[in-house]
Amino acid sequence: MRDGAVGDDRVGDQGAEEPAGPGSARVEALSDAIIAIAATLLVIELAVPAAGADVGHALLEEVPAFLAYGVSFLTILIFWVNHHALFGIVRRVDRPLLFLNGLVLLGISFISYPTATLGRALQAGVHDRAAAVFYAAVLCGTASAFTGIWCYLRFRPRLLSETARGAVQGALRRSLAGPGAYAIAALVGAANAALGLALCALVAAYFTLAPRRPGRAGAA
Amino acid sequence: MRDGAVGDDRVGDQGAEEPAGPGSARVEALSDAIIAIAATLLVIELAVPAAGADVGHALLEEVPAFLAYGVSFLTILIFWVNHHALFGIVRRVDRPLLFLNGLVLLGISFISYPTATLGRALQAGVHDRAAAVFYAAVLCGTASAFTGIWCYLRFRPRLLSETARGAVQGALRRSLAGPGAYAIAALVGAANAALGLALCALVAAYFTLAPRRPGRAGAA
Amino acid sequence: MRDGAVGDDRVGDQGAEEPAGPGSARVEALSDAIIAIAATLLVIELAVPAAGADVGHALLEEVPAFLAYGVSFLTILIFWVNHHALFGIVRRVDRPLLFLNGLVLLGISFISYPTATLGRALQAGVHDRAAAVFYAAVLCGTASAFTGIWCYLRFRPRLLSETARGAVQGALRRSLAGPGAYAIAALVGAANAALGLALCALVAAYFTLAPRRPGRAGAA
Amino acid sequence: MRDGAVGDDRVGDQGAEEPAGPGSARVEALSDAIIAIAATLLVIELAVPAAGADVGHALLEEVPAFLAYGVSFLTILIFWVNHHALFGIVRRVDRPLLFLNGLVLLGISFISYPTATLGRALQAGVHDRAAAVFYAAVLCGTASAFTGIWCYLRFRPRLLSETARGAVQGALRRSLAGPGAYAIAALVGAANAALGLALCALVAAYFTLAPRRPGRAGAA
Repeated sequence: MRDGAVGDDRVGDQGAEEPAGPGSARVEALSDAIIAIAATLLVIELAVPAAGADVGHALLEEVPAFLAYGVSFLTILIFWVNHHALFGIVRRVDRPLLFLNGLVLLGISFISYPTATLGRALQAGVHDRAAAVFYAAVLCGTASAFTGIWCYLRFRPRLLSETARGAVQGALRRSLAGPGAYAIAALVGAANAALGLALCALVAAYFTLAPRRPGRAGAA
Repeated sequence: MRDGAVGDDRVGDQGAEEPAGPGSARVEALSDAIIAIAATLLVIELAVPAAGADVGHALLEEVPAFLAYGVSFLTILIFWVNHHALFGIVRRVDRPLLFLNGLVLLGISFISYPTATLGRALQAGVHDRAAAVFYAAVLCGTASAFTGIWCYLRFRPRLLSETARGAVQGALRRSLAGPGAYAIAALVGAANAALGLALCALVAAYFTLAPRRPGRAGAA
Repeated sequence: MRDGAVGDDRVGDQGAEEPAGPGSARVEALSDAIIAIAATLLVIELAVPAAGADVGHALLEEVPAFLAYGVSFLTILIFWVNHHALFGIVRRVDRPLLFLNGLVLLGISFISYPTATLGRALQAGVHDRAAAVFYAAVLCGTASAFTGIWCYLRFRPRLLSETARGAVQGALRRSLAGPGAYAIAALVGAANAALGLALCALVAAYFTLAPRRPGRAGAA
Repeated sequence: MRDGAVGDDRVGDQGAEEPAGPGSARVEALSDAIIAIAATLLVIELAVPAAGADVGHALLEEVPAFLAYGVSFLTILIFWVNHHALFGIVRRVDRPLLFLNGLVLLGISFISYPTATLGRALQAGVHDRAAAVFYAAVLCGTASAFTGIWCYLRFRPRLLSETARGAVQGALRRSLAGPGAYAIAALVGAANAALGLALCALVAAYFTLAPRRPGRAGAA
């Protein structure tokens, strides 16, 4: 892995005006770890029925929280697939890219918080629209940070593998779908919280099952 | 690792009608991370004796929760072994496989929740049968998602390494044992919670200690 | 990494009477992940001062919990070093070894629980000896599982790299120091909790700073 | 990865007076995992609005905690970059280095605790200066442990890759900036908590965005 990272750095290193930061493979490994942990931590926020409580009843009441949990879990896995597609064509990592990637990871790690907020608000049935807007807004922000990376790469083609440079424009365009969809989900959530969550679920289902041409196709 | 992933993708890439997703090695690395975290997070749900409480007494009361914890920990390790056997023969990953694997990971990450529910219900001694059914049902669902992957691979031999293709049929048949055993555990748990947990422990012990011929034997 | 794992399996595979399980490199990777998470999760059990509380005062009261936290963190790091020394000479992994390693990981993941129990009991100043015995007993059990692995390897030299086979006897003898030291710490803790923890800290300091000849020396 | 680790050990192993511990690549992998988990765990300490609470209002009240969370997340990512720069030039790991690295990891894993303490104290608006001093002090201690490693490497050049030996002196000097800046933040925080946190945010922003010449430049 380390060797791979160093190797990646060396590609295109001729005439590099910047000293080496962590190689792209290493940034990817850290990102993978953070994404895996973020997905797995979601479960902690689910309220375990108290000792002595009617378990069947308590679980039924928890269903909205389960649904929010499932949607967030799949959404984080999709972010992982996208992150991989993105770094599959990155050959070198500079400081602003490191920073933008940090924002993506901050967003993904944070998802468990709005997920728990939405789950509880849906259970209570009050103030749930504010929670749905908050939930969709965090997803929108995270997806926007992704778009920000594509945007940055568009103007720094030297960070990319040569074969992939032509594909950035298209990938940037495609990557606008995420923030757009979550912005709509926020609007819908402002009117009806459950519908907002359902839309986020739909986005996850679409990105999971639709045939696609990922950005890294050019690099593979 | 990354090199391995890319290499895996290339095997059998001639005439691939689908663009590359994450390589099987990378999917495996993410799965490993999620499984490791899921196993380690189990401990968080154990109730630490309050400051000033009679520690010996509190620990004794916690014994049912410890048992559920131990069974879940070993079960997750066994899922890990099975997951490895499975991906040991997978050479390429397509979208439906990615999605099915996502379901497996969702199930594994979720296990800490029914574990805590069962632990508390066993301590309280009421509503524990509902908790035992829930616990076995989650294990059954997770094992079924595994079976679903084998089922899918049965019809997509091109995702497998060539030497392994003949072994899928047998692996699929064997993989039915998991959901079956946990379905029985759910039935038993509906009659007696402790017995249901004991059956799950037995399943874990059997899979740990029995001699076996894993699906990847053909590939090794 | 995966390649390494497969490679490890192949070494000594001629005439193997058992089908391949996960390679030793992969078992090591999972173990590393679980150990890293176990160490990092320790912090969750520390009680954050409530909003509005006198922070300085609350932190002072938390000092015993901080000490238990620090000792456990370093102890887990030492378990990691030992685990690495052990798997540095293992070339093949069979089922009983997988199971024994699972026990080691179960013990390590569990450490945060007795750590929190001891921290709280030391703060309260009552029932802390029971907590200290419990703490040292868990460390003793985990160290014993390590010894169990060395014991098993002693009778299964074919799992080891050839150059390392001669070193197992000595490593097994040395590995008895851990359970022994923690058994003494449990006895001491039964008389005085703080002294018991101090002894565990001493063990950690000794293993960290003493010059040593690890079991894998023969393999390197 | 493992191969890399073993390879690293072998470099400069001629005449080594100490038996091999874990290779530098393996220490790095464990450190990466711990750092990733530490960053992701931060979110757990954020208080999820209770079911039925006014979500918008509760989130507004949580803003100081969000800010502390963001600053800590980015700070941990910067520690990761620095850790990588450091181990990028290390070729062999001995016991004291392992111990010093353990202190760095202890500090980084601990950050979520002062972060939560500061977040709550800022919300309550009382005793927040003590919390700010505590927060900056933990960051100062962690940064000092880093400086300690550079200091140690300065006197053990044989642990470094040959090309990197000349760069240690400069790296040690530069690494003093961290403890210094956080010491000032602690002083400022003693006067005004929010200002202390703002200074820590500034340090993170500076290290993220400023052009730099990392210590490993000589090694790349």
